[in-house]
Amino acid sequence: MRYDFGSDNTAGMQPAAMQALIAANEGYARAYGADEITARAADQIRQRLDADAEIRFVFSGTAANSIALSMLAWPHEAVLAHHAAHVCTDETGAPGFFGQGVGLIGLPGLSGKIEQKALEAALEEPEVGHRQPPAALSLTQSTEYGTVYTEEELRHLIEPVKARGYGVHLDGARLANAAAAGFDLTQIARLGVDVLVFGGAKAGGLCTEAIVMFDKSLARRVDNRLKQAGQTASKGRFLTAPMLGLLESNAWEDGAAHANLMAARLAEGIALRSRFVLAHPVEANAVFVRMPAKAHARLNELGWACYRFDDGSVRFVCSWATEEAVVDEVIEAIVGLS
Amino acid sequence: MRYDFGSDNTAGMQPAAMQALIAANEGYARAYGADEITARAADQIRQRLDADAEIRFVFSGTAANSIALSMLAWPHEAVLAHHAAHVCTDETGAPGFFGQGVGLIGLPGLSGKIEQKALEAALEEPEVGHRQPPAALSLTQSTEYGTVYTEEELRHLIEPVKARGYGVHLDGARLANAAAAGFDLTQIARLGVDVLVFGGAKAGGLCTEAIVMFDKSLARRVDNRLKQAGQTASKGRFLTAPMLGLLESNAWEDGAAHANLMAARLAEGIALRSRFVLAHPVEANAVFVRMPAKAHARLNELGWACYRFDDGSVRFVCSWATEEAVVDEVIEAIVGLS
Amino acid sequence: MRYDFGSDNTAGMQPAAMQALIAANEGYARAYGADEITARAADQIRQRLDADAEIRFVFSGTAANSIALSMLAWPHEAVLAHHAAHVCTDETGAPGFFGQGVGLIGLPGLSGKIEQKALEAALEEPEVGHRQPPAALSLTQSTEYGTVYTEEELRHLIEPVKARGYGVHLDGARLANAAAAGFDLTQIARLGVDVLVFGGAKAGGLCTEAIVMFDKSLARRVDNRLKQAGQTASKGRFLTAPMLGLLESNAWEDGAAHANLMAARLAEGIALRSRFVLAHPVEANAVFVRMPAKAHARLNELGWACYRFDDGSVRFVCSWATEEAVVDEVIEAIVGLS
Amino acid sequence: MRYDFGSDNTAGMQPAAMQALIAANEGYARAYGADEITARAADQIRQRLDADAEIRFVFSGTAANSIALSMLAWPHEAVLAHHAAHVCTDETGAPGFFGQGVGLIGLPGLSGKIEQKALEAALEEPEVGHRQPPAALSLTQSTEYGTVYTEEELRHLIEPVKARGYGVHLDGARLANAAAAGFDLTQIARLGVDVLVFGGAKAGGLCTEAIVMFDKSLARRVDNRLKQAGQTASKGRFLTAPMLGLLESNAWEDGAAHANLMAARLAEGIALRSRFVLAHPVEANAVFVRMPAKAHARLNELGWACYRFDDGSVRFVCSWATEEAVVDEVIEAIVGLS
Repeated sequence: MRYDFGSDNTAGMQPAAMQALIAANEGYARAYGADEITARAADQIRQRLDADAEIRFVFSGTAANSIALSMLAWPHEAVLAHHAAHVCTDETGAPGFFGQGVGLIGLPGLSGKIEQKALEAALEEPEVGHRQPPAALSLTQSTEYGTVYTEEELRHLIEPVKARGYGVHLDGARLANAAAAGFDLTQIARLGVDVLVFGGAKAGGLCTEAIVMFDKSLARRVDNRLKQAGQTASKGRFLTAPMLGLLESNAWEDGAAHANLMAARLAEGIALRSRFVLAHPVEANAVFVRMPAKAHARLNELGWACYRFDDGSVRFVCSWATEEAVVDEVIEAIVGLS
Repeated sequence: MRYDFGSDNTAGMQPAAMQALIAANEGYARAYGADEITARAADQIRQRLDADAEIRFVFSGTAANSIALSMLAWPHEAVLAHHAAHVCTDETGAPGFFGQGVGLIGLPGLSGKIEQKALEAALEEPEVGHRQPPAALSLTQSTEYGTVYTEEELRHLIEPVKARGYGVHLDGARLANAAAAGFDLTQIARLGVDVLVFGGAKAGGLCTEAIVMFDKSLARRVDNRLKQAGQTASKGRFLTAPMLGLLESNAWEDGAAHANLMAARLAEGIALRSRFVLAHPVEANAVFVRMPAKAHARLNELGWACYRFDDGSVRFVCSWATEEAVVDEVIEAIVGLS
Repeated sequence: MRYDFGSDNTAGMQPAAMQALIAANEGYARAYGADEITARAADQIRQRLDADAEIRFVFSGTAANSIALSMLAWPHEAVLAHHAAHVCTDETGAPGFFGQGVGLIGLPGLSGKIEQKALEAALEEPEVGHRQPPAALSLTQSTEYGTVYTEEELRHLIEPVKARGYGVHLDGARLANAAAAGFDLTQIARLGVDVLVFGGAKAGGLCTEAIVMFDKSLARRVDNRLKQAGQTASKGRFLTAPMLGLLESNAWEDGAAHANLMAARLAEGIALRSRFVLAHPVEANAVFVRMPAKAHARLNELGWACYRFDDGSVRFVCSWATEEAVVDEVIEAIVGLS
Repeated sequence: MRYDFGSDNTAGMQPAAMQALIAANEGYARAYGADEITARAADQIRQRLDADAEIRFVFSGTAANSIALSMLAWPHEAVLAHHAAHVCTDETGAPGFFGQGVGLIGLPGLSGKIEQKALEAALEEPEVGHRQPPAALSLTQSTEYGTVYTEEELRHLIEPVKARGYGVHLDGARLANAAAAGFDLTQIARLGVDVLVFGGAKAGGLCTEAIVMFDKSLARRVDNRLKQAGQTASKGRFLTAPMLGLLESNAWEDGAAHANLMAARLAEGIALRSRFVLAHPVEANAVFVRMPAKAHARLNELGWACYRFDDGSVRFVCSWATEEAVVDEVIEAIVGLS
């Protein structure tokens, strides 16, 4: 089976990440994140975001998102999110586990973007004791369907939420792809996001995501919180060195730009040459194709791992490692099936 | 500050671990632990334990222990453990977090080993509705104070627990050190342990521990459990490759043997040449020294990181990376203070 | 405001319940449910169910349901239930709170009854690590929309669930109304229900529901479980005396029969005399009416408390205390609006 | 068995409580605590405390305490409490269940009162990531050992806690007995208590305790919180009517005064006439007697239910219902054994 397009988790680390990891393996270092590499990785992130923030590194996006949400909503409250968001569909109920039953309210919207009217309707629902009222909004950039919110779109979603005093979480597992697509990272703090999950794994790092707390009051005793949640790396430098390597070398951006480019090439090939239709605008590194079950099965048989999503389309993801020639190869395979 | 003896987490990865990680970074691999490297690492562990078992890999010992305990006890029950065990004193209440309030009953015993009589007394406490009755025993091998249980000792602790139908967890964060000290790993399953945490990080790996479920019924939907708990590595091969490297090369054992040897050297030097007394038998890779606060502070000032424990003694830990010359150097420093 | 039809919680206790409570107030009694009244109430329930079972009494249906579900599903699993079931829509996420994130999978079906095909489709979903797979089925009898499952219907829902080794919970908050409608209580255990919540409050008791564990293995240390969950009455006799009074006098059945009769009268009056349509078959004590927002608002203004449900209809509930003359009065009001 | 002295939970409701309950059973009332009786009961409590506060009523002291603590401390934090406090020893770990692992730090102190120095030492412990640092103090008035804090004592305990910005909880399960002993209820808010549990059950009510939130920010969405926690009474008036009856009639105070008087009589009888020693000052309604196991067993055989506590003494509790003649009878029995 070929996993080139199965997910952006199937590729390895970028060379810059690996080299930093190798370099970090010299000598002794303070345990539990009190090392210099971790400090430098946090600085790199703050620079990119042009904002002050408390930053911690954890092992998985699921944990990062869930812990972030547990900072913003009590168990008897709920988080508003796109119904297809990772926190709703792909984390085995982790927000409820970390948040002791915290609720999720799924919102509709085209191509993974929350529809503003739906959000407002949810915010205007009268509060009753027997439901979990919203306390936070969870956004994803780039979205689960490979689209990228504009600043304007985000502003319109965030404003009514902040106006009610609720919190805002941004799942940035693919933030690098959004940035490569033109999204200005320095606007995240300005737009009012309280907690950002700054993705490393899908950008070609190790399994490392950063929890970025712009609202520093959320960081009160966060080291205890992470330790209790099993998210403190004893050998913190190994968690953060690959992230630092990506950031200092700009491989974080460059890899994502390459991934986006490959996705565009793949999308164009499919759109122009096959009879299959693209299910969503291709703005980042994922391509969703409307494809009959038979064609999908045949593609799998031909050795190409790719998965059907909740909207019925089949997803192809590109990464820093995707090769142009392989993109062309899979286009041929898809064209042959259509 | 020199972290040579601060903890066994301050050393880097062993070369065998790092090489395996580098090798694993080639090409694509299935995500979420369904890769071949992960399968081979699990095989290596099963071979060492000479037992069948379901095995999963997680990011931290805290998570591994807490998840294991949540398999063995309900929230309204408790786990028996040495009062100085890592689960009791060093995990920020993680067993209660993962186990939604599961209780811990601290037991006394010399040098980190649970006293059999105390265990039996706890087991014989009449059950009442307003307390959390024990449902499991948690053991640590080697112990928090650097000692190693004999098989006989473990048998006497495990038997009365199993006789009541309760579960047994073994925290093997330093299992390699126990093995290097002569503890026979193939006895773990035979003694009746239900879940073992097989340590990788302190043995010179990445932040990776294996949850070994001898009782396979505990593994029901364990992949969902781990995903929900934020302990599923998207890039599973990076979690398991260093472990595989350690195990295939026997660096897991060799590194621990070296660590134990260095601890013995350190202990001997202190015992023979200083006026300080060893607080516990040195059977694995840690040396605990009774030392006045002033001497401890002075040692820190001299640049040697080392920590005071709950029993009042100061701990020095050796690892695969500890150099003989540095051991001699710290002995000199200690002798000079005594 | 007149609360006659607002809910079956707005009526008081039946005289038999109150008399038993008064009688129970004599002298001293052992605390925490170890009293004789509690034992007799449990016996009464076992007789009605013609089955052996462990029985405990708790303060609220929300707690009873949530605790029952926490016996049947782990946090990383889910419970299948009608999307309009009380556990899904009216308990502020309590199953997730008591079950530390346990999931709920809402199923469709007409008039509050789960559609068999939808259940089977859910059971046949392939299991994946990133979703919460089903571990139990939650049923409601009589249903949230005032209908009553036949034995045959329940059998077809329960069988495929039990065939997979999953558990079955029955929310019997209105079990008395189902019984009064002809549902044979002795079939509950035979059909394979593992845990029943036997309702008292809506039948004219105090705030008391019984958790009936046919599968006695679920009752292991249940007293500890309830105490920890804040559901142990120190003065247990006051919780169970009203239930005992209802059961020994058959007021439990008689009150429900009266409530059903009043609902039938109300339904007939609306169906025959108004232009409004009944939204669901009226088989127990609730009547759901399709009514424009204006008419609903006007009815409220006239002093009749009644609520709009998720299906858009307006609910009228009858209880043991509903008076015929008041039924006729509200019919007049409704007719006047139509 | 005679339960006169087993606990203050073994007596029934006071006549004033029962009469109010009977009166409340007339007609219909809004469900879920939105009724007039509930509002009046809250007013009565505010008057006694001479303070504004949000007040809610729940079913059990265990739930009331645990929910209060979950408002004051995160799961990764801990609550400071006397090691013999009800929250530490008698609630089956409920604080950890409701608070998802929140820790308890047991403090020493004579006769159930926290020793100020021990508290200060705990507050001054350096914070480390791998422990749960304190976030709140839990006090009990009157204490588990039947003593009553003076205002001065409370001030010295509360001040250093508030100075750090931590919260203060007061478990007032026996607040009526403290008040009857001279403790000024109007000082509770002034001393800085954030959440008070105002006891009803032990004062001769039904199973009802009030959560009194002086810090109103803690009451944000508290109705959702209580509903989710299974602590919302559908028939709220039955929960609050007995409390209202006690308060409007002053039976809450009078019953406690009687209980204290009976305890004083019992204590005096034992002190003067038996060879047994009182274990603690008798300041409220409980008498603790140092008594050999044999004498205790014999007393039980004679039909007097009484329990040995963690400090080794045997407890006798008086209530509103305790009769003078029965006090004299048990004194005779005790004298006969000594």
